[in-house]
Amino acid sequence: MKRFLDEAQGLDADDALAHLRQCFHVPDGVVYLDGNSLGLMPKGVPARLAATAEAEWSEGLIRSWTAAGWMKLPSTVGDRIAPLIGAGPGEVVVGDSTSVNLFKCLAAALELRCGRRVILAEADNFPTDNYIAEGLAGMSGDRIVRYAATDEPIADSLDDNVAVLVLSHIHYRTALIQDMGAVTAAAHAAGALVLWDLSHSAGVLPVDLGGADVDFAVGCTYKYLNGGPGAPAYTYVSPRLVGRTRQPLAGWLGHADPFAFAPDYRPGVAIKRFICGTPQVLSLAALDESLKLWADVDLPDLRTKAMRMTELFIAAVEASCGRQGLDLAVPRDAVRRGNHVSFSHPHGYRVMRALIERGIIGDFRAPDIIRFAFAPLYLTYADAVRAAAELARVLDQELWNDPRFAVRAEVT
Amino acid sequence: MKRFLDEAQGLDADDALAHLRQCFHVPDGVVYLDGNSLGLMPKGVPARLAATAEAEWSEGLIRSWTAAGWMKLPSTVGDRIAPLIGAGPGEVVVGDSTSVNLFKCLAAALELRCGRRVILAEADNFPTDNYIAEGLAGMSGDRIVRYAATDEPIADSLDDNVAVLVLSHIHYRTALIQDMGAVTAAAHAAGALVLWDLSHSAGVLPVDLGGADVDFAVGCTYKYLNGGPGAPAYTYVSPRLVGRTRQPLAGWLGHADPFAFAPDYRPGVAIKRFICGTPQVLSLAALDESLKLWADVDLPDLRTKAMRMTELFIAAVEASCGRQGLDLAVPRDAVRRGNHVSFSHPHGYRVMRALIERGIIGDFRAPDIIRFAFAPLYLTYADAVRAAAELARVLDQELWNDPRFAVRAEVT
Repeated sequence: MKRFLDEAQGLDADDALAHLRQCFHVPDGVVYLDGNSLGLMPKGVPARLAATAEAEWSEGLIRSWTAAGWMKLPSTVGDRIAPLIGAGPGEVVVGDSTSVNLFKCLAAALELRCGRRVILAEADNFPTDNYIAEGLAGMSGDRIVRYAATDEPIADSLDDNVAVLVLSHIHYRTALIQDMGAVTAAAHAAGALVLWDLSHSAGVLPVDLGGADVDFAVGCTYKYLNGGPGAPAYTYVSPRLVGRTRQPLAGWLGHADPFAFAPDYRPGVAIKRFICGTPQVLSLAALDESLKLWADVDLPDLRTKAMRMTELFIAAVEASCGRQGLDLAVPRDAVRRGNHVSFSHPHGYRVMRALIERGIIGDFRAPDIIRFAFAPLYLTYADAVRAAAELARVLDQELWNDPRFAVRAEVT
Repeated sequence: MKRFLDEAQGLDADDALAHLRQCFHVPDGVVYLDGNSLGLMPKGVPARLAATAEAEWSEGLIRSWTAAGWMKLPSTVGDRIAPLIGAGPGEVVVGDSTSVNLFKCLAAALELRCGRRVILAEADNFPTDNYIAEGLAGMSGDRIVRYAATDEPIADSLDDNVAVLVLSHIHYRTALIQDMGAVTAAAHAAGALVLWDLSHSAGVLPVDLGGADVDFAVGCTYKYLNGGPGAPAYTYVSPRLVGRTRQPLAGWLGHADPFAFAPDYRPGVAIKRFICGTPQVLSLAALDESLKLWADVDLPDLRTKAMRMTELFIAAVEASCGRQGLDLAVPRDAVRRGNHVSFSHPHGYRVMRALIERGIIGDFRAPDIIRFAFAPLYLTYADAVRAAAELARVLDQELWNDPRFAVRAEVT
């Protein structure tokens, strides 16, 4: 492990993003490799929450909807996300959950392609994406979800029945990066629309929704964007389409003039029609604060660091855990891989419990996947090597084989 | 006004709820009569937000989903609301917005009554309720929204085409209280289901969803429940029905076993199937804290105080503003009236601006309604009389006739 540690120290010394770690609260003794589930807390968040509650809510009260800019938060926060995903100002709004936003976009897409009856999805996508597609399709007699096999290019399943294709840009388990431009072009060539789920790619690598001519995108903000637990999600619709879209979650704040209290719904300008009910201001304020950290981040730098970190981690793990039952479950080629490294292991759940107890926090995804996410804003290369060393120790010494870890922790 | 002030002082001296005012931050010099739009902040909220961010998120990180109970928050917060609306434990969940929850419930109701094609609504209901009903109906060719005239009992519009009736228990402008038991019984007699919007009644008067045999209910928590700006909304479904319901916003946290990441959606037990995406924990934590204040509130006491406050306010206003163009726009009979008093006035917008400048914060609802809400948890009878006195002054001295108030404040 000495060789990897030396390499890590050299890389850390040259890291152009190293100064950002100090903007986050990093718990003592922890190597946090679960930033693809819940990012670390930026240090500015508590003060922002206090100001939002104690000044804006408790003193400003209802006046803060205008005076403190609450009413505009879905758009102002959206404008902070836009440059991270290749969107322009006024093209992104924030609010509701990824699931709810998926529903809005899929419904809008089905209406734009009303002569077609198929939502094309990947069988192995993050479950909520497919559950929502099924929920939507189930509302009318003739709409169906067609699943493409994971091991075939999804574009091969396109035909002239497909209204919309929904796909994760980076897969939540395999970390596989889809070719956004090629898949979008193939869908368009088949007359279909595309909805990309960016939950595992925003804040990970440069995304170019505009350049790829994407129709719809949604994503989560509590992973690599560090917005806090359950932070609201975002929605993007191509400016080429948005003026023609209608979405059924026609809440009052998506109305063109909400305070007219008009009997008829008139959709808001452009992406604002994808706002629904009253935004959850406290959660939005925390997210707004967190996103300020991205103003000066060079996304190609970020991507380079992440690729090097995952390469270093894989090399260190494979050098030290060669015959311990680990199988790499992400692409070996860093160019095709997002920011997390997954291994399958027959005792994956227990291995992760043992690691967490030793301060290496990753996560487990059924049935046998242990995941380690490398968030370049706050992790060091030395963290990656320390995690590999602890994994080797847990496997070598069979520390996972502790009766306490045989019982699944209750989560619901 | 002296007579009313004396009466107010006597009532305040005898007020069994008076001690609760100290649990809220009341800005200096303000009489806050907009608690039906955004309630005052309970003093415990900032510490709870700080603990949620600084201990649970930043230190506990992903472990807090179980260790800090985040995963259960939709249910634990729902259980705090349940006794306020006549529901039992495990019958209410909290998350998403009122608009989104309306959509879920209406869709579930349409599926339970799939042979019927009409959503019956009140033409003059809060717009989001009707926009959402229209959005849902617009997703299939044969479903329509039928509007009942405001001046006729809505039950007169029931027939065997009506799948579900959606109605506010207390109207957002007129404050009219519907007879929940009678309307629900009439709907059931016609074979229809009922969805009540409790946004203006929870925390206002005792609501008895169970006793009235209500099918569905939703409501907002940032008004009389003081949950904070845009706080998440709640959903109730009768235990008699819930096991048979399906709702299309089938997000992963409504799944019976979310962490199995199963390919097929299997709805969660009972009301948990109405949870959708990941809950917005910061907003939920603030709401959870705010709801603690309700543990010892006697709802009949609360109702009595509210009725007396609105009576006193109306009497004081009418005694002092007799010929100033004000028309009472709520029922004169306190038994039929919720917690807010509305007057129409030809210069309503400007009158309210002038009042707000003088510390009397109510709100304006187009085209000509000024609203004053009396939240009995934190207002005094003396507040009601002071508000009436300032309104008299604004009208007598034509203080509303200031050029600054002619320009509408920008809200979006």
